[in-house]
Parts: sequence; structure tokens; C-alpha cells
Amino acid sequence: MNTPKRVYLFGNGKAEGSAEMKNLLGGKGANLAEMNLIGVPVPPGFTITTEVCTEYNKLGSAKLREILSDDVHNAIRHIEDLVNMQFGSAENPLLVSVRSGARASMPGMMDTILNLGLNETTIQGLIKKTNNERFAWDSYRRFVQMYSDVVLGLKPESKEEHDPFEVIIDTVKKEKGISSDLELTTEDLKNLVTIFKQTVEEKTGKKFPDDPWEQLWGAIFAVFDSWNNERAKFYRKLNNIPDEWGTAVTVQAMVFGNMGFTSATGVAFTRDAATGENLFNGEYLINAQGEDVVAGIRTPQQITKIGSQRWAKLAGISEEERLSKYPSLEEAMPETYKELFEIQKRLENHYRDMQDMEFTIQEGKLWLLQTRTGKRTGLAMIKIAMDMLREGMIEEKTALKRIDPAKLDELLHPVFTKEGLAKAKVIANGLPASPGAASGQIVFFADEAESWAAAKKKVILVREETSPEDLRGMAVAQGILTARGGMTSHAAVVARGMGKCCVAGAGALQIDYKARTMTVNGKVYKEGDWISLNGSTGQILEGKIDTQDPELSGDFGAVMQLADKYTKMKVRTNADTPKDATVARNFGAQGIGLCRTEHMFFEGERIKAMREMILAEDETGRKKALAKLLPMQKNDFEGIYTAMNGFPVTIRLLDPPLHEFVPQEESAQKEIAEELGIPLEKVKARVASLHEVNPMLGHRGCRLGNTYPEITEMQTRAIIEAALAVKARGISVLPEIMVPLTSTAEEFEMQEDIIRKTAEKVFAEKQDRVDYLVGTMIEIPRAALTADKIAEHAEFFSFGTNDLTQMTFGFSRDDAGVFLPVYLEKNLLKHDPFQIIDREGVGQLVKMGTERGRKTRPDLKVGICGEHGGEPSSVEFCHLVGMNYVSCSPYRVPIARVAAAIAALND
Amino acid sequence: MNTPKRVYLFGNGKAEGSAEMKNLLGGKGANLAEMNLIGVPVPPGFTITTEVCTEYNKLGSAKLREILSDDVHNAIRHIEDLVNMQFGSAENPLLVSVRSGARASMPGMMDTILNLGLNETTIQGLIKKTNNERFAWDSYRRFVQMYSDVVLGLKPESKEEHDPFEVIIDTVKKEKGISSDLELTTEDLKNLVTIFKQTVEEKTGKKFPDDPWEQLWGAIFAVFDSWNNERAKFYRKLNNIPDEWGTAVTVQAMVFGNMGFTSATGVAFTRDAATGENLFNGEYLINAQGEDVVAGIRTPQQITKIGSQRWAKLAGISEEERLSKYPSLEEAMPETYKELFEIQKRLENHYRDMQDMEFTIQEGKLWLLQTRTGKRTGLAMIKIAMDMLREGMIEEKTALKRIDPAKLDELLHPVFTKEGLAKAKVIANGLPASPGAASGQIVFFADEAESWAAAKKKVILVREETSPEDLRGMAVAQGILTARGGMTSHAAVVARGMGKCCVAGAGALQIDYKARTMTVNGKVYKEGDWISLNGSTGQILEGKIDTQDPELSGDFGAVMQLADKYTKMKVRTNADTPKDATVARNFGAQGIGLCRTEHMFFEGERIKAMREMILAEDETGRKKALAKLLPMQKNDFEGIYTAMNGFPVTIRLLDPPLHEFVPQEESAQKEIAEELGIPLEKVKARVASLHEVNPMLGHRGCRLGNTYPEITEMQTRAIIEAALAVKARGISVLPEIMVPLTSTAEEFEMQEDIIRKTAEKVFAEKQDRVDYLVGTMIEIPRAALTADKIAEHAEFFSFGTNDLTQMTFGFSRDDAGVFLPVYLEKNLLKHDPFQIIDREGVGQLVKMGTERGRKTRPDLKVGICGEHGGEPSSVEFCHLVGMNYVSCSPYRVPIARVAAAIAALND
Repeated sequence: MNTPKRVYLFGNGKAEGSAEMKNLLGGKGANLAEMNLIGVPVPPGFTITTEVCTEYNKLGSAKLREILSDDVHNAIRHIEDLVNMQFGSAENPLLVSVRSGARASMPGMMDTILNLGLNETTIQGLIKKTNNERFAWDSYRRFVQMYSDVVLGLKPESKEEHDPFEVIIDTVKKEKGISSDLELTTEDLKNLVTIFKQTVEEKTGKKFPDDPWEQLWGAIFAVFDSWNNERAKFYRKLNNIPDEWGTAVTVQAMVFGNMGFTSATGVAFTRDAATGENLFNGEYLINAQGEDVVAGIRTPQQITKIGSQRWAKLAGISEEERLSKYPSLEEAMPETYKELFEIQKRLENHYRDMQDMEFTIQEGKLWLLQTRTGKRTGLAMIKIAMDMLREGMIEEKTALKRIDPAKLDELLHPVFTKEGLAKAKVIANGLPASPGAASGQIVFFADEAESWAAAKKKVILVREETSPEDLRGMAVAQGILTARGGMTSHAAVVARGMGKCCVAGAGALQIDYKARTMTVNGKVYKEGDWISLNGSTGQILEGKIDTQDPELSGDFGAVMQLADKYTKMKVRTNADTPKDATVARNFGAQGIGLCRTEHMFFEGERIKAMREMILAEDETGRKKALAKLLPMQKNDFEGIYTAMNGFPVTIRLLDPPLHEFVPQEESAQKEIAEELGIPLEKVKARVASLHEVNPMLGHRGCRLGNTYPEITEMQTRAIIEAALAVKARGISVLPEIMVPLTSTAEEFEMQEDIIRKTAEKVFAEKQDRVDYLVGTMIEIPRAALTADKIAEHAEFFSFGTNDLTQMTFGFSRDDAGVFLPVYLEKNLLKHDPFQIIDREGVGQLVKMGTERGRKTRPDLKVGICGEHGGEPSSVEFCHLVGMNYVSCSPYRVPIARVAAAIAALND
Repeated sequence: MNTPKRVYLFGNGKAEGSAEMKNLLGGKGANLAEMNLIGVPVPPGFTITTEVCTEYNKLGSAKLREILSDDVHNAIRHIEDLVNMQFGSAENPLLVSVRSGARASMPGMMDTILNLGLNETTIQGLIKKTNNERFAWDSYRRFVQMYSDVVLGLKPESKEEHDPFEVIIDTVKKEKGISSDLELTTEDLKNLVTIFKQTVEEKTGKKFPDDPWEQLWGAIFAVFDSWNNERAKFYRKLNNIPDEWGTAVTVQAMVFGNMGFTSATGVAFTRDAATGENLFNGEYLINAQGEDVVAGIRTPQQITKIGSQRWAKLAGISEEERLSKYPSLEEAMPETYKELFEIQKRLENHYRDMQDMEFTIQEGKLWLLQTRTGKRTGLAMIKIAMDMLREGMIEEKTALKRIDPAKLDELLHPVFTKEGLAKAKVIANGLPASPGAASGQIVFFADEAESWAAAKKKVILVREETSPEDLRGMAVAQGILTARGGMTSHAAVVARGMGKCCVAGAGALQIDYKARTMTVNGKVYKEGDWISLNGSTGQILEGKIDTQDPELSGDFGAVMQLADKYTKMKVRTNADTPKDATVARNFGAQGIGLCRTEHMFFEGERIKAMREMILAEDETGRKKALAKLLPMQKNDFEGIYTAMNGFPVTIRLLDPPLHEFVPQEESAQKEIAEELGIPLEKVKARVASLHEVNPMLGHRGCRLGNTYPEITEMQTRAIIEAALAVKARGISVLPEIMVPLTSTAEEFEMQEDIIRKTAEKVFAEKQDRVDYLVGTMIEIPRAALTADKIAEHAEFFSFGTNDLTQMTFGFSRDDAGVFLPVYLEKNLLKHDPFQIIDREGVGQLVKMGTERGRKTRPDLKVGICGEHGGEPSSVEFCHLVGMNYVSCSPYRVPIARVAAAIAALND
């Protein structure tokens, strides 16, 4: 048996590992090796392999130390040789960092220990070298604190208590009457180290290890132990990461950017992370540590001269002041800058993506501590991908994969101006339910939203939660704010459909409809007060903030073209009006996947006729009222067909329970009674009889059409008559009539029978025909389970994953707001299943429904029209299941197009 | 190719077919043949096979008539020879009946045509033979009417219109100023025949066929056509009957019981259908037709002398009057009686079951027209099966299969006395939600039910629908009546659990809580008025009716022993109190499958502590309140364990949403506020925040235990402490702790973790241990889909098919009352899925959950605790799926035991 290689060295342009060896060296170790190989200066070090972690778990620490001892000693010697320092030396001490690193980035495992190797002896060497006693003692203090926490496990005794070391520091500060850590003197820090070590001994019964080697072994084993701590195990379980993988340990020489005025530290980007401009940029601080940049005590300086000049101009600083106080690295250390510039070019060329780098300059010598793919805005994401494609750096498929579809959302909605946002005060946070930015005056009632809007006022509609009665108010508002409800509440779904900004479920809001006030943390906002909403972040802000429209660049169009080249699924839209249909078509939608007819029933005269139907005594009465609705519905459909000329339009028959159409308040009931000339008592009785305990599972969907077939007849007539009318005007039309909430094949067949008979009647009357399909929503578990039978008659399936998720989980999306956040926090759920499709459970039903349906009818058209149709991970799932299309709200069409294309590339 | 035999003759003790040939001859044809073979006198006839039906569908009527013509002519000749009459003869005409008959009894197909062969010529022969002109013309009139409807398809033109013939008869009666058909003279009937035939000609454009042969062919083809009518096709589809089976046609000589005083007609039973007594019995009428018995114009006479004497005694008729006016057949026609007696003996011995026979005596000659297995009461069912077993007529397995488990219900609940029921007036009908009979005074509120009951009054609690707040009132009421809700509404489920009579969903009731009245069809019933409920039939009756307790015979016990001998599943009970547990144990329950802890929270001090917990600000406040509940819960569990000594007890953790425990009315909220010393506003706000749109899918089940782990901790502590306490007293205890409403494996694991940690804590404190299991309800579709993962930790599964049905169908059982009846009526559903498990959909999930669970954990214990656990067809399904046990309400335990045994026998 060969002895496996357990330790991989790197440093000085050489490395035993490489980027390919992530499985063995972990992501961090492999990348550090790679940087060496391409000639980037990296502090030397070594990586203990993931296989050793597995050995450790089998053999235990004593045995492993025996096996590993020589390798680790040799590896430390290797570092000592390269940096010319000695581990444990009182003159020229080598200090190291110890880091964990698995194949995949894994929260829950041990993070980093810095300054390992310090003790009462070696600190003298550090003081000599840095000539900075306070710095040395503060480093020592930090090391003891970090090591005690991470390696020795010295945690607060309960979650109510504070970190014991922070308690000690606070006590010292109180005694001295100071408030900031920075005011602690060298003497204070020395004392703290002593007290810390005493505390460790008291609490653990063991002395704090002074021997650097003991420190090192402790740190290595702590990393291995962290692989099996509860959080890490839980995370692995959730993400299906095998326990056998193990973690690697990387030990690396420390470098310091705070060793005087030839030292510095900074971060740099190969391109502009905000705009995508191909311009090297970044910030740095002379004689500083990484932490100092974060602390914000000193103003960081720009790395490039051009960046520095731009910054000064924005900050209103003269060129003289800039040069004297804030010179760029390019100007302050031109040689080092040149080296850094070349390195960043090399790294970008090597990794073929925009890099985000950390560097430290120690006494004039440049060291790269990290390089990684840089985070960027949606705008930058598109520009960088398309620039690199044009530069020949990457090919089409790679460029497309570089697009994070979810980030496109940023580009499609109005945004607050930077200036406005800088001055604004955040009142509270809610859920980012529908993206965009909006400012308006508070109104609490839909009808007032309408009258204020009619008076040219901009309003934000604020409600506990919205209902279909609020639709008209929502339509005229700039944005919608609700105190209850989640990401798929009524407000959220409708707002996204309208492309309108919405913040939902802002629990801190207390709304008093009578007083017309909204109270947040004790502060009262009245009707008419200005507020602003950021639907992309969930922020609620005080006052009016200027917004600007997004501009779609040519690169945006190029990305869309690329997507269409590689996609296998079509993207349709959910749209209920010609206006929405047009917006979606402009975003590239290839048809309507869901046209909800009920939204059409709320406007003006329609709601009256609808209520007349609901209040009718018998079929004759209902038919009379439906006859009034027929021409209105027909007219709507003509508009939508026309907007979608050439593309299919899926129209869903009436779905919501009837009580949504009748008012609950007595005053409104009185009005209806007078309008229809029936006694108030009768209206009240009917409204009461429509009350349901669980309306979600009640008398709705095709249960309406099967108990009142005349509704289906009227809607079919409107759909077919409208199709014949636009056909006569030369419009190419393909209606797809969709039965909602099917749970049995028999239910669907009865609806289909009514639809086909009605259509034939209309064809005979009009002496003309059109092609049309009859299909069904699959949104009830039983429908998915019996899809083979349903497909005997249904020509298409559209998965309604909102309702399917509700019923498969038994979660009401209107009520889950109480426990879903807790579930997400406790990791009982990885994602909100209403946002990202639950592949494990709901996904089984979608797959089963598709496969069983196609078994009966191989050419069955299958799509999705739930909210998931516009969410990238869910779109990928739809692709994998083999759907023909996804359908989503108009503003998510581009997102779905890219997500579908990437899914095809990854498949 | 051999020509298939198309027509099978029977008559005069010979037959070409037999009972074995049901596939070819249909059930009716095969049985008529069989009676011939065992020497029972049956009017001769012939059967055209089911295969001919298939030929007919392929070839059409013209071609088929060609093929079949000779066979049918010969067959009619065969009848003519045997009865010595001629088809179409003006002197001695043969009349026949034509009937359909498939393998399985099939509603929707053509029924019977009688008197076929009559026309203006043959009627003369009939008049001569019967010497009864009016009878002959009435027979003719009936034939024309029946034939026109069934064969010629002369139906009302729309469902709103009346039968055209009835319209004609009504017109004639109006003209003559008479009200009864009996007052029509011979002349009137003659006229009607003429008008009827004219109407046929007008409406169909064809003359009514006078030629008997044309009549016959028309009837034969009509039977074949009826195989493919919509209703029959739909029925076949629902029942998976292949279209190829086809129907047979049986043609048989008519016999008449109304040809004078040596003729008679009657029905007879080999044993007493009410009591099971082994005593031949029945009723007959001299010179009468079957219809006359049904019409109730004449009082039927008893067949046996002993039966006649018993009847006279009950009716208060003297022996003299009886003998003169109502002699038994035994006395009136001793010879014929003797023959009938021997035949019934022969038939029972042959079929080895109690027979229900129709017979006609024509001019002294006895003919059997039908024999079939007799319907019987539950009492008779048991006695007959056990008697026959003892008589050696059948063996054990057959005896057991003779028990219809559902009928046992009759024996287990109080019933109205016959005398009381005879006088009672039915007010309205509701659903038979929980069997039994009860009389009491109307009360509308639970607290008044309590105070009235305390005053020794018997009350019926009448509510729109019940909620957990009504529990105490339900417990003291004689019965429960609701206007809304279905078979599995709160009222129904709780009442069945309590073994208390309940009629639910009586839509005709209008309840006015303020006025304290209940109005039914305009009549007002006030608080305090007496009403009676029959929970077995759904009848609501006026006034007070005496009831009697059922007596369980020794035969009942014998059936149960037999069941236990052959069953493979155990039967447990759903019980929440020691009393229920004891009842169930006496009925043979072998453990508790579902103990709902929430019902324990409603009594006295408990509800206060529960409310205190719900209204608490934080975990500390909740824990304080829970500490008060702990000893009460512990005490409950000790009682239940003791009652179930030696058997497992499955305890479900808190399941319902918290709003069920807080009152909705302000007055009650005020009380709570005062009791707990918190502001009313706070109580109101908390109650409001608990409101849910769809409580069924809301914050309940293990979602409570995962957001408030302290609830699970308290309940586990009570369960384990109680177990240790009874163990110390020598009770054998096996608690099975059940997590409700699991939808993800992670949810279950978090609950399991809390349970196991708490149990270990208690074991350590008490220095003792007990074995216990931790398992889960499978009642959410996702849990069934991911059962393999859940079974990694769960030690048992219990299918909660009530909720599983709700979510799989998307039907709220509280709201489905609006559309389920329509669905059942329109045959969109075969059964109410809340009563009989839906094997096609819900059953898939049950099967999947069981199989996947056992794949992970082969010894996984699997049971069911939904309402289906006591329903025979569902119990059979549970057996087929391989469950270890079913659990049902105490009063259904015997039913489940028998159903399980029969399922095992049939498997």
C-alpha cells in the first residue's frame, strides 16, 4: 500500500497542487496553489488534504498527530525557508494563519485563525520587527480571543449571555472611563492578554497553549472537528454533501500591511463592479490592516489615478488636496502599482472573469491574499459578459452562463436616484414582494386611491392585506404596502402581474383604518403623508424620493438573442389585459400562458352584473346576468388576441370563490340591494351563505362551472365569439381554454363537454370556425396523481404551482407568514417553497403529472403558470421535466428566457 | 367456424343454461335457468346471450334480425308449446315479458316490458280468458304506455315537462271530474289506448306496432340499445365494467295472479328478515297483481298460519275475523301452500342463504317469478349466518362473509321503538352523521345545553355548525343537529367519537340564534320544543319518541370471535378519555390509534391555562401557563393507560390552530382579560392576529410544536411521567408519541429531537424508563411523497385520511357541502371521499407512503386513524395496502374487526 500524500506545499511560484485539485485540497487550497503556478506572489504555505480529515475521524487526534507530525514539521520548515523567519523565534518569528476549506463553500465550519505562533516570547520579535508595541499586543490579544473561541470552545454559557472576553473588555473600559477600543493603551492590552489567559484556565481547567506547535496542532484538529459540528452536519444534510468529503486545512505565512509607510492593504477589481466598465479599480490604505478599511476610520484611497480623480471630483476635492492627502497607489507606489496592474490582468485572463482581489504590501513587497470572481450589479453583469464575448475571452455559452437571471430584475424597474436614497430614512422593512421604486402619499382605501389618483395625486395604497376588491385602487397606486401576507399573497402576486412596486408583510406596521393612520415603532403616519417603497429590497422609507427609469442597453438585447439561440422552452406571460400582454410581448413573450378572467369582473358595470348573477335565485336569473357580462368579456378577449396576434392565448375559466365578488360591509350591501331591487336581508343572507371556512379548498374553480354550467357556457361563448371576430379582421388567433382546479377526470370531462358543445353552437351560428384547445390546470395533488386519466381528454396541462404547493405542503400562503419565517430561520426549509419550487415534494407531483399525462397523450403540451414560472431555479426544473413552456408575469419574461437557456446549456 | 349458440331455452324443469353461465346469460337469465334445473316451476322462456349484444353493436339491427330470426321464432314456439298458448292469437294469446340482464346488476339499462303481445286482436282473447274486460284494457293501456316510453323513446320534451301520457290521463280525469285512476271505466281505458297510439304517431311519425313480432323485435333491440345509453356507459366507466360484456335479453311467458279467486300473488322469505328467526313467512293477495300489493289498497294477508295469528294479535283482530277476512295461504290454499313451502326450502338449501321470492298463482298453478338473496336487518344478518353455520349449511368463512360490517352499526346504538316511530312526523332530513336515536328539547347554545342538562333535562343541541367551543355542550346533549357541514364536519366527527347521535348538514333548517328559533319549511320550532333525531337515517322528527337500547346477542360475540380468527389487521380505537377507551376495549379494540390531546384542553380550568399560554407575551409566559396544564394532561394519560393496560396508546401532540381555544365574542374576551389581568385590547389584538384565511392549512400541527417547542416539551413530559406513574402501579404501558401534520422530514426530526431529549430528562429525574415509540401522522400529500426520508427517523406512520383527502382533492370538508351533493348526483364522484377512501387518488398516496416508508424501515408500523378506519371498503383497502392496524371510533370497532377479517378472506 502506498502512503498517500497528505500535505501539499505552495509558495514562491511553485505548488504541488492546482485549481483542478479542489476535491483533495478544498477550494481555498486549490486556488492558492493555482495563483503560485501562474506567478502571482502569495504568502507561502501548505494544505493538509481532505483525505486526512477522514483519517482523523477514524483514528483520532493522537494517532493522526503521530502520522502527520513529520509532514507538518517539514511544511513549516518550507515556509520558514521561503520567508526567512522562524516559527517560535524570539527574534524573527514566523506567524501563520490557519483556515478550513472544503470542496464546496460551507458555512458552519471553522473560519480563520490569524497570528498563530504568538506567545510571550515571540511577541518580542514582532515588536522589534514592527517597531509598534501596541500593534503587537493588540495582535496577541486578538489571537488569544479568537483561538479561545474557535479552538478551545470558550463560548458564552447561554445565548442570553455575552462573550466572556467582551465582558472583560467592557469592564476595563468602564473602569477607565473610555468608550472605544482604540483608547486602550499598550498596558491595557497586555493586561487583557493576561486576564484572557486566566479566564481560559478557569473556565476550561487548562492553560492557554504557549507553545506555537501546540497552538498549530490544536488549530488543525479544530478545523477537522468543525467538519462534524451540528451546524456543518445540518448544512451538509440540507445540501446533500456526503460526510466523506471532509475538509482541508490551509496554513499560510502571515503578512502585515501595517508595518510602516511602505506597507499597505487594499482590495481591487479588474473591472467596474457597478457599471461593468473595463477599468481596473479599487481602494487601499497605507500602513493599515484589512480591518481598518472596514472600520471606516480612515478614508480609503483609490488605486488608479483616473479612479482617484473621478472620486475627487464627485467628493468636491481639489486636485491639490487629492494629491497631497489621497494620492492613488499608482501615484504613491508606482512600481508596486505596476506589479499589481499586471497581476490583475494575468488573473482575469487566467480565470476569464472579473476578479475581486485582496492584497497586502508588506515593506514594499506585494502579496496577493485572495482572488475570487467579483460580485457585480445586473448592469455590470451584462456588460462584462458581452464585452468579454466581444473581446474573444469567452465564448457564447459561457457568456450566457455568466448571466444570473434573477439579477436582470434590477434592470427592469424604476430605481431611486442615488442622491435621493442617500438622504432617505428607513422606517421599516417588509418583504421585497414586487420590484421597483415608488413614492406617493399614503391612502388606506382603494376607492380613495382612485379619487386621489383622478386628482393627479401619486398614492401608495397601504392595507393590512389586499383583496380583489382593492384591484382598482392597486391599479392606480404607485406602489402597494401591506402589513400581512407573504411573497405570494394577493398583493404580491397582483403587483408583480402589474409590474408595480410592492412591499408586503411589513409586520412592524400597525394600521388603524378608522383613524386613517399607520404607526411604526411609535411614530404615526397619517393619510396623505409621503412615503417611498423599494420593492426590490423591501425597504419602506420616509418622504418623497426621486426615481429614474431603467435604460435597457444594447447588451441587454444581445443577451436575449443569445438566450433564444440556446433555449429549448418557450416563455409565455401571465396577462389579463391587452396592456400587460403588450408589455410582455415587448419583453419577448411568445404567447399568454395564463389569462385570469376573474380580474375582468371587477371593473365598473361588470361587478354589478357579476353580483346580480351571484344573487340570482335560479339558473334563469343567473343566465340573465351572465348575458350582460358576455359582450364585456368578448371585448376583453378581442383586445388580448389582437395584442398577441400569432401567439396562443390560454384563457382560464372563472376560478375564485364567489364571495370575493360581494362586499362584506353593510353599507355596500345596501347599495347592491337598492341597485338590484332586492331586500337587504336577502343580500346579507346570500353573502353569509357564501362564507367559507377554508375558501382555498372550497367552492371555486371548475366546481363553479360544474355546479353552474351556464358560467362555463357564457365564458366559452365569449372566447369563441371574440376569436371569430378578430379572425375576420385578419388576426391569427389560437385560444386555449383552460379548466381550473380539476381534481378528477370526470370533472374535466364535464367541463370539456360544455365547452365543445358551446363552441360548436357558436361555429354554427357564425358560419365560421377557429382551432382551439381544451386543457386544464394541474394544481391539485389528485390531478397530478391521475394525470393519465385526465390526459385522455385534456389537450394541454398547465401546472398551477402556487396552489399545488399550498396543497402538497398543506401551507396556506395567506397564513404561512406566521411560521414560514421561523421555518426558514431554523433551517426546517431551505427555501420558501412559494418562491422556489420544492423539487423534492411538489416537484415529484409535477414530474409524475407530466410523465403520466404524456404516457396517455405523447404530444400533450405542458407548461407552468404559477409564480415559479419566472424564478430561475424553478425554470431550470421545468426544463428538466421537459415542459414546453413556462409562463410568468410580464416583467419576469426576460429572466425566464435566460433561465431557460442556461438550463438547456447545463442539461 | 362453429355457429355460436345464441338463444338458451328454459321451462318445464329443463334449461339449456345454469347459474354458472352468468357471463353468457346475465344474472337474471342464469338464475331462471337454474330454478328450472332444481325443479322450481318458472314460466317458460328463453335468453338471448350477451354475445349477441356485441354482434348487434357490430352488425346493426337489420342484419342481426336476419341471423337471429329462426332462433327467436323457435324459442317462442318452445314457450307456446309449454304453456299451450299462441303468440298473436285472438283466442288464447301468449303474452310475454322482456327483460335485460347483464353479468352485474347495472342501473341505467332498460328495465322490464310486461304484457308484450297485446293488440286490438289479442286483447279479445285476454278478455275471454280473464273474463275481465277492464283488467284487459288496463293491461293494454299499461303496455302501450310502457312500450312507448322504453322502446319508442317517447319522453317528456324537457325535464320541466310532464310525461305526455300522464298529461293525457290527467286531462281525461279532469273532464270526468274524477281523481283516481281506479275510477276510470273500461270505456275510458279503451279511449286512452286510442289516444296514446295517436300521440305516438304524431310525435314519432310512426304507427304504434300492432304486430306482436314487431313488438318483440323492437323490445329486444331496445334492450341492446340500452347497453349503450349515456347513463349505462357512465355507470360502466365508473365501475370499470368493460363495454364488451354486453347485456342478455330474457323473454318469458306472462302469468297473472288476478285471474279470479284461484289466482294470487305474493312475496315470501325463507326466514324472518327482521329478526332472523328460522321461520318461513310472507304476504299475499288473492286475485291480485304485484302492483296491488304495493299500492296498499288492500291489506295483504300472511302466508303461514302462525304468521297470520301473530299479525292478528298485534293488529287486535279476533281469530274469527282473521279466518273470515284474512286467512293465511296455508289455510286458504293448503295444497299450493305446501308446494310453496317445499320450494322455499329447496331454494334456501340450494343457494344456502335466506331467499326473497316473488310468486304468482294463476288459476291454482304456482309459478316462481324470482328468487334472490333476501335483504335483512343487522340483527337478522347475524342470526341467520350463525344459525346456518350451526345447521351445517355453510362453513365459517362463508358465515363471516355473510356479515355486512356496515349493518352492525344498527346493533350498537339506541333505536326508536316501532310504536313511537309509527306515530312520528318527519320534519326534514339531514345527513346520517352519527348513528343512534335521540329525543330532547331544542337548545341553541352549548352553555345552555349544560345548564339544562344539569337540571336533568334532555336536550338536542342545534347549531349552524359546531366548533370546539361547543364540546361540553355536545357531551351533555342527547344528540346534535347542525344545518351545515358534511359527514366529516366537526359535529359529525366528534359525535361519532362520543358514540352520540348526530344529524348534520340539514340544509332546510334556518336557525335564528337571536330569536332562539329554528324554522323548517315555514314552521317555527322554539327553544325547549321537543324533537327527535335518527342518526342512522338522517331523519329529524317532531316531538318526543321512545327509544330502546340495543341488546347484543351471543351471536354477536360469536361473529366477533370468528372475525378475530381470520383477520390479519389489528383494530384500535380513537379515544380521548378513559371512558371512551373502556367502551372501545369492551368492543374488542386492541389499543388506541389516536388520542387527541386537544379535546382535553377544553374542560374547566384547562381552557383558562390554555388561553393564558396563547395570550402570553413570550416563551417564559407560555412555559408558566403550560406548567399548569402539565399535571392535568398527566392525569388524563394515566387514566387512559390504565383503561388500555397491555395495549399500545398512540398520543397525538397538539394539532388544531390556536384560535380554536380563544373566544370570538367580546363578552367572553372581557372575561378572559379580567381573569388574566391583561387589557381587553390586548386579548382582542391577539385573537385577531390568530385569525386565519384558511385555518386548515395554517399554523397548526407540528408547526405549533416547532415554533413553540415548549408545548411539545410539556406534552412529552406529561406522556412519559404518566407512563412511569402507571408502570409503578403494575400497568403495562406502551406510549406511541405521534407528531401531527408533518410535511417535511426536517419538521419531524426537530420534533423527535425535542421528544427524545425531554423523555431522557424525565427518565433521569425519575430514575426509571419505559419503552416508547415516536412516529408521525401522514396526512399531508408531501409527507406521503417523501415517506422514505421521514421513515429514517419515524418508528410508525398513521395515515390521517381525513386531512389527506382534503388536501389531495383540495376539498375542505367544512365547505364541500355546497358542491359534494351536486357532484354525487351528477356522478362526478362515485362516493363521498370523506366516507369511503378514494383509492384512485388518495389511495395512491397511502400506498406510496406505506411502500416508501417500509423501503427505508422494513418493520415500520403502519396504521390509519382517519374516519375511514371504521368504514368497511376503506378497511379492505387498508388490508390490501398491508397496514398493521386500523383505528376508529369506539362504536365502529366491531365493524372494523369484521371488515378486516372479510378483507383477509377475500384477499
